[in-house]
Amino acid sequence: MNTIDKKGAPSLRTQVRRVAQRGQYDQATLYAILDEAYVCHIAFADDDGVHCLPTACWREGDHLYVHGSNGSRMLKLAASGAQVCVTVTHLDGLVLARSAFNHSMNYRSAVVYGAFELVSGEGKAAALETFLESIAPGRAREVRSGNAKELAATTVLRISLTEAAAKIRTGGPKDDDDDLGLPVWAGVLPMTLAPLAPIAEAETAEPPKYVRSWHTASPNSME
Amino acid sequence: MNTIDKKGAPSLRTQVRRVAQRGQYDQATLYAILDEAYVCHIAFADDDGVHCLPTACWREGDHLYVHGSNGSRMLKLAASGAQVCVTVTHLDGLVLARSAFNHSMNYRSAVVYGAFELVSGEGKAAALETFLESIAPGRAREVRSGNAKELAATTVLRISLTEAAAKIRTGGPKDDDDDLGLPVWAGVLPMTLAPLAPIAEAETAEPPKYVRSWHTASPNSME
Repeated sequence: MNTIDKKGAPSLRTQVRRVAQRGQYDQATLYAILDEAYVCHIAFADDDGVHCLPTACWREGDHLYVHGSNGSRMLKLAASGAQVCVTVTHLDGLVLARSAFNHSMNYRSAVVYGAFELVSGEGKAAALETFLESIAPGRAREVRSGNAKELAATTVLRISLTEAAAKIRTGGPKDDDDDLGLPVWAGVLPMTLAPLAPIAEAETAEPPKYVRSWHTASPNSME
Repeated sequence: MNTIDKKGAPSLRTQVRRVAQRGQYDQATLYAILDEAYVCHIAFADDDGVHCLPTACWREGDHLYVHGSNGSRMLKLAASGAQVCVTVTHLDGLVLARSAFNHSMNYRSAVVYGAFELVSGEGKAAALETFLESIAPGRAREVRSGNAKELAATTVLRISLTEAAAKIRTGGPKDDDDDLGLPVWAGVLPMTLAPLAPIAEAETAEPPKYVRSWHTASPNSME
């Protein structure tokens, strides 16, 4: 189900205002940004004011999922149907221009507005399995599955991606014409969230494929 | 000025509730997390509800700074003295346990509550120079400095770190005793925000030291 307008923002509050040409409202762009994320930030309000807390997230279909302990204040409030804003950000590089003012950063971010809904029944265990598989394909069949008590202690929530928008900056600096001749290095210092070598427990089984390939898949070490 | 209580949370809303032993309230821990961050997420509320937007940040003394265009909705609201929550998160690894339930993530996060104040006058240009120097030491003297028009178009805000807390998870999985003998690989898949090779503009000056050392400082390529 594609509920995201491919040309414009799905709502007033998802319309990118600053540097509006960086706004992206197509589903493929949104999904790609969310699928690369391990963590999102959730903004919510309660009697103490606004809060902004990080938590793990994963996407399935047209929903973004989060989970946690039943005791989590954020999850309890989110499960109550309160309006939230969920944001994912990937920092891709520092953009060094010839003038101080034109410095920038390359990034891809996605913002989702709406309310979470509780995932219960058989869908709950299935959603948690999807999460584990999204991180380590095959692992759900290797580990001890959650028992009834563990499952009961866990809250799973999902939010529709109907009201969402992405914002992206790519490429080099945009210098003023008058600055182009200045004797200053200009370009991009790129960065990425890169895997480091796995750290195994002292006594453990042989590493499966997703562990063996973790570090070698690094964009740095493949050079 | 150290206004952060070294033993307990500085306020009720900065008290870490879920897995309380992960809460850290000392200044050095807070500063280290903030100083490693290029980007924070700011939660704020307006007539449209709560919002969660990423933006560049830097620390100087006991304040966290952000900046942007005068036209930014977020900065206009933040400058009005509204209560906000500013969060920085570093994801350090996936923690793979022998049971699905005990999987976790290693992370360092910092949460700051309060209201921004406007940085104006001479302090504004000085703060922006501090930002540039924190990213690229020496660059403030190389580039064309901001002129009066550019400076006037930029808003700089800062928030006190008086009401802040950090939350950290490190180390391997915490498995149930009964699961320790399971034939499942257990350990950590670490990750870090790593620099990639600089991308120079087609016609530009020789790279300064902070550009030449950007990629070689990578935790991956130093192996």
